[in-house]
Amino acid sequence: MQESKKIAVVGSGLVGSLLAIYLKKAGHTVHVFDRSPDIRNIEFSGRSINLVMSDRGWKTLEDIGLDEEIRKIGIPVDKRAIHLVDNSLNYQYYGKEGEAIFSLSRGILNRKMIDLAEAAGVEFFFEHKIWDVTLSDATLHIGETERGEWEELQYDLVFGSDGAFSRVRHRMQRQSMFNYSQEFLKIGYKELHIPANEDGSHKLDKNSLHIWPRGDYMLMALANTDGSFTCTLFMPHEGTNSFDNLKDKDTLEAYFAEHFPDTAAVIPDLVEDFFKNPTSYLVTMKCFPWTFEDKVALIGDACHAIVPFYGQGMNAGFEDITVLNEMMTLHGNDWEKIFTEYEKSRKPNADAIAELSYRNFMEMSTKTADAKFLLQKKIEKWFSEKHPDKWLPLYSRVTFSLRPYSEALALGNQQNAIMDQVMQLPHIENIWNSEIVENKILELLG
Amino acid sequence: MQESKKIAVVGSGLVGSLLAIYLKKAGHTVHVFDRSPDIRNIEFSGRSINLVMSDRGWKTLEDIGLDEEIRKIGIPVDKRAIHLVDNSLNYQYYGKEGEAIFSLSRGILNRKMIDLAEAAGVEFFFEHKIWDVTLSDATLHIGETERGEWEELQYDLVFGSDGAFSRVRHRMQRQSMFNYSQEFLKIGYKELHIPANEDGSHKLDKNSLHIWPRGDYMLMALANTDGSFTCTLFMPHEGTNSFDNLKDKDTLEAYFAEHFPDTAAVIPDLVEDFFKNPTSYLVTMKCFPWTFEDKVALIGDACHAIVPFYGQGMNAGFEDITVLNEMMTLHGNDWEKIFTEYEKSRKPNADAIAELSYRNFMEMSTKTADAKFLLQKKIEKWFSEKHPDKWLPLYSRVTFSLRPYSEALALGNQQNAIMDQVMQLPHIENIWNSEIVENKILELLG
Repeated sequence: MQESKKIAVVGSGLVGSLLAIYLKKAGHTVHVFDRSPDIRNIEFSGRSINLVMSDRGWKTLEDIGLDEEIRKIGIPVDKRAIHLVDNSLNYQYYGKEGEAIFSLSRGILNRKMIDLAEAAGVEFFFEHKIWDVTLSDATLHIGETERGEWEELQYDLVFGSDGAFSRVRHRMQRQSMFNYSQEFLKIGYKELHIPANEDGSHKLDKNSLHIWPRGDYMLMALANTDGSFTCTLFMPHEGTNSFDNLKDKDTLEAYFAEHFPDTAAVIPDLVEDFFKNPTSYLVTMKCFPWTFEDKVALIGDACHAIVPFYGQGMNAGFEDITVLNEMMTLHGNDWEKIFTEYEKSRKPNADAIAELSYRNFMEMSTKTADAKFLLQKKIEKWFSEKHPDKWLPLYSRVTFSLRPYSEALALGNQQNAIMDQVMQLPHIENIWNSEIVENKILELLG
Repeated sequence: MQESKKIAVVGSGLVGSLLAIYLKKAGHTVHVFDRSPDIRNIEFSGRSINLVMSDRGWKTLEDIGLDEEIRKIGIPVDKRAIHLVDNSLNYQYYGKEGEAIFSLSRGILNRKMIDLAEAAGVEFFFEHKIWDVTLSDATLHIGETERGEWEELQYDLVFGSDGAFSRVRHRMQRQSMFNYSQEFLKIGYKELHIPANEDGSHKLDKNSLHIWPRGDYMLMALANTDGSFTCTLFMPHEGTNSFDNLKDKDTLEAYFAEHFPDTAAVIPDLVEDFFKNPTSYLVTMKCFPWTFEDKVALIGDACHAIVPFYGQGMNAGFEDITVLNEMMTLHGNDWEKIFTEYEKSRKPNADAIAELSYRNFMEMSTKTADAKFLLQKKIEKWFSEKHPDKWLPLYSRVTFSLRPYSEALALGNQQNAIMDQVMQLPHIENIWNSEIVENKILELLG
C-alpha cells in the first residue's frame, strides 16, 4: 500500500481526469487544476476532432471499472466509408468481424470523466491558471495573469497533463539536458457539422468513419450519439488547395460543390461553420525526460503530442496511465523509481506512435494518388487475406492490440522493406496476385 | 540607399557586435543590449572553447575592412597535433600549403569587436535584461527581474543575436507554426589552462590544434597570443569515462596521469581549474522561421546553435551577416523581403553545418577506435592526394571555401556512399591502395 500523498494534476482534460481517478483510488489526495472554466458549464465546440477509443484506451478504463459507463456515450465504428468525387461510396472494414473503434465526442467524454472523478472524491479547481512550477519542491504558481500576483501552492507530487502547450513542461524545458522538439504540419484543420435528421437519426451510416480523401486535403466525419456528425476538414494552410484560398462564401461553396459534391445535402451550415470556427494547427511534440526527481511528471499530450491520423492520441495518453499504475504497484513509495521506469517504458512507444501517425499523414496526403502505392496496398491486402497468420495489417497491430507501439513500428518497417523488394519485381503490375509474388513475400518473411 | 531605421540588437556577443557595425555603416541608429556587464571590464574565462576563424568568417570581416585588426589578435593554425597515450605526437595538415584556420580567444575577440562597434558609432547598453519582445511592433521589455517592473522600448527593427537560449526566440517559439528543437549531447565540456613559459613563449607548438583523442572523450588545446593555451576537455556527463566519475583530486590526477600522461608537464593547475570551472553543456538547436514580418530577425546561435566539432559556430553566424547584408543591398527598404530571403537562403545551410558538426562528433566519439573507419579515412586521403581535382576532402570544402554548407553536406554524402561500396570490396584491407580501388572510386565518381 502506498503512503498517501498530496497530489496536484495540472489539466482537466481526458488524461488528467482519468489519472486523477487512478490516483484517488490509490489513496491519495488529488487536486485537479485547469485554466479554463468547467467544461460541464459551457458549450464545447469549434475546434475538436472526434475521438476514437481503441483497445489501449479500453484497457485503461476496464482496469478501473469505467468502460461500461463510457460505452453508453459513443458509437462503434467498424469500417471506413470512402466518398469519391463521383459520389460513389466504398466501405473498408478495419479488422476482423467484431473489431471496431469507438467514436466519442470530446466534450461529452470529458464532462463524463470529470463527473466520474468528482464522484471518486477528486477535487477540481477550474479557472485557476498555473503560470509556473518550482520543480524541486512541487510548488504551483497560480494567478490571474502572467505578470500579476501569484499564489504558491505546494504539493508532494505534481502531474502535468496540460496538453501540447504544457506550462509544466515549459518549466522543465529550461533545464540543461532537456531535449525538446515541436514540428508543425503545413496542414491545419477546421470543424464542420452534419446535423441529425428531424427524427434524430443520422444522415449517414453512423458505424462508419466517413472520409472524402482528395490527395493533400480531405474531409472526415464521425458520428455522435445525438444523430449528428462532427466533421473535420484537413487542408494546407497555404497553397493551391488551402484555407488561405477559401476566403469568401462564393469561393467556398463552389469549392465544396466541385470537390465534395455529396456533402451539399448533409452540411447545411457550411458557410457559417467555416467562417465561425477557427483553423487549428497540427503539431508533433517530443521531449525527454518526462519527469523530475520524485516530484514532477508529464503525461499525455504534455510529453508526446502527435498528429491525429492514426486515432491514437487519447489511447496513447491512457496507456501512459496504465503503465504509470503498473509502476506504482511495483515500486510502492519509491516515486523516483516509479517515474524513471514509467518514462523509460513509455518514451520509445510514444516516439513510435508519433512516427506511425506522421507516416499515415504522409500516406494520405502524398501517396493516395500514386498508382504504385495503391498497387502495393492491394498486394498487402491480398497476401494478408491468404496468410492472415503471416501478415497482420499494421493498422490492426496498432489499434486492436495491446502490444507496444514500438513493436508495431518495427513490424511496419519490416513490411515496408519486404514490399520495396516486391515492387521491384519485373512487371509487378501484371503479376501482382501470382504465385511468384506470394512465394517472394513468403521467402522474404523468412 | 536605405531609409535610416532605429534598430535594437539583443546580445553583444561576436555576431551581435559585428552585425551592429554592419547596420551602423548602412546608416541606421543601432542600440545593442546585453544582460551581462561589459565584457571589457570583467575577467572572461571558465566556460569557453577557443574560436577558430576560417574563410567564411574572414569574408564577413574583409567586406567591412576589419580583417587586419583581427589578424593581430590571433594565431594561425595549419595542422592538428595528435597526442597519443604513449606520448607520441603526429601532425596532420588541414589543407594545402598556406591554408590555415586562426585561433582566437573568445574574450579578447569579443572585447575587440565591441571596441570597433563603439568606434563606428554603435551605442551599447550593458546590464539591461530583455525579458520579452512584442513581435508586432518590435518592442523590448526590459527590467531587473523577470517578475519585477519592466520598461518598454520600441524600435523599428529588433535583431535577436542573444545566443542558444535566446529570449527573442523564446517569444517567437510560442507562436503557431514555429518549428523548434533542442537536443543535448551526452557529452559536456570543461575549460582547462596551459600557461605560458616564464619568457612568454608557448609550451606546445602554437600553430597546431592539439588533440588528445581517446574515443568517447578527448582533450583539445588552442593557443592564445599571450603564450598560454585554452584547453577543453570533452567527456560524457555520466558513465565510465565521465565528469561524474571525477569527483575528487586523487581520482582526477590518477585519471590524467593514465590517459593524458604528457599533460602533467603543461597543466600545472589541473585540480584547481577542474573543480573551479563549470561543466558546460553542448546542444544542437534548430528553428524556423527566423524572422517575424518586417520587425524581428534572429541571427547566429539564436537560430542555429551547433556543436563545436567543426569549428564553424562563429563562422556560420558571421556568414549570416554576409547574406543579410547582400539582401539589404538587393532589396532596399523592403525589410520583409530582406528577412524572408535571408532566412530562405540561410536555413538549409544552417541545417547542413549542424549535421556536419554532429557527424564530426560521432566520428570522434565512436569511430576513432574502429579499424575499418580508420582504413576508410586512409583510402580517402590516398585517393585525394592522387586525384586532388576529383576528391576534395570534406574538411576543406567546409573550412577553406565559401561554397554553401549544403553543398558540402551533399558532397560528404556522395563521398560516404562511394566509400560504403569501396569498403565492401573483398580483401579491402590488403588492396586498399591498389589500382582496383582507384578505378572503382573513379568509376563511382562517374
